[in-house]
Amino acid sequence: MEPSKAVCLLSGGVDSATALAIAKAEGFVPYALSFDYGQRHRIELEAARRVAAAAGVRDHLVLTIDLRAMGGSALTADLAVPKDRPAAEMGRGIPITYVPARNTVFLAFALGWAEVLGAWDLFVGVNAVDYSGYPDCRPEFARAFETLANLATKAGVEGRGRFRVHTPLIELTKAEIIRRGLALGVDYGLTHSCYDPDASGAACGRCDSCAIRLGGFAAAGARDPVRYVAEAGGA
Amino acid sequence: MEPSKAVCLLSGGVDSATALAIAKAEGFVPYALSFDYGQRHRIELEAARRVAAAAGVRDHLVLTIDLRAMGGSALTADLAVPKDRPAAEMGRGIPITYVPARNTVFLAFALGWAEVLGAWDLFVGVNAVDYSGYPDCRPEFARAFETLANLATKAGVEGRGRFRVHTPLIELTKAEIIRRGLALGVDYGLTHSCYDPDASGAACGRCDSCAIRLGGFAAAGARDPVRYVAEAGGA
Repeated sequence: MEPSKAVCLLSGGVDSATALAIAKAEGFVPYALSFDYGQRHRIELEAARRVAAAAGVRDHLVLTIDLRAMGGSALTADLAVPKDRPAAEMGRGIPITYVPARNTVFLAFALGWAEVLGAWDLFVGVNAVDYSGYPDCRPEFARAFETLANLATKAGVEGRGRFRVHTPLIELTKAEIIRRGLALGVDYGLTHSCYDPDASGAACGRCDSCAIRLGGFAAAGARDPVRYVAEAGGA
Repeated sequence: MEPSKAVCLLSGGVDSATALAIAKAEGFVPYALSFDYGQRHRIELEAARRVAAAAGVRDHLVLTIDLRAMGGSALTADLAVPKDRPAAEMGRGIPITYVPARNTVFLAFALGWAEVLGAWDLFVGVNAVDYSGYPDCRPEFARAFETLANLATKAGVEGRGRFRVHTPLIELTKAEIIRRGLALGVDYGLTHSCYDPDASGAACGRCDSCAIRLGGFAAAGARDPVRYVAEAGGA
């Protein structure tokens, strides 16, 4: 029997790189899917390409979609990315960097590609612990999408299999994710997390994403291999 | 109190033009959303623009997305559109014109835009009777998406309201849809349905979509105002 294919959402950050490594470790043939959605931190697409190549994915599809046309987020519109928020504040509420329905849109495309490929398994590196307050990173969201997937598709309706949304990181802390990834040989030096890198690509060390990443590496007792601007925490 | 906004998926065909007219008749301020997804029958986007303008929508957003990159359908890939299928065959199975996860992708974008606009109501002209065998045109699909929408979004999670997926045509025959639209003043001469129009934009009269449309107008006792190629059934 041929090994099963899996479509893995790949942003180029720590979580998606780890989820991809887990899909491989579980024996799936990985297909990586990334999006050029007008994000301000487009450097993450270069990271996604590096991570996909290092993981030896069967194919890496980068789809261009225009989330900017809808407006509404600091990640795609001309709103300032928040910096230096206290840790207590990051866990509360939904931040300005929330992109409306982003994971719904991403998973919808992943589902379509999976159906074309004959894959039943979608991997997404969402995380409910350090989830930054995004509603579409919660277990109930993943389960609802799975239900939808099996009603929405020819493959699901014909009952030849069942689509599954794998969220292997959903109950892990950032430190646990990093330890898991290091054990699987993930090179986090290829990844990118910062919402607001400088022109050279160095991470700011001060946005929510950098703060969570740096906290995770510190708690994992590991060194973060990416480059930070000189004055930031990671230097 | 301001009237509520609704995001209406608008393909430029009979069903979506009618659903948009129903949203207006129900008192919603309509926002139309269309997709340039590499469809072979891109002339339908011109129809969508005409229909949106005639309906006086508040805004009409046309998003470009690359479903072609995923392959897998006669509507987006280089596969032949079936012609002259017997009516009995059209109702059975899922045809080659099925686009994987298309309505899931479209509704995901509609949800994101609705959240940005502060709208809670999504209108989609899907139809379970003459649905051509597409799984994502069924009531259970719409309900599953509604559940997902309220878990996937900041607006849904904060509980300020509830997203609703309106499918006003879902139990109507094509003839009933056309009668309803005519009663609401829809000009079907602005719409486009054919999967395989000729260079001048005339409908082929022989693909599934033309066959269903022509059958609907005949059953409604109405004349289809669009132009067909000379030898086809509508001439």
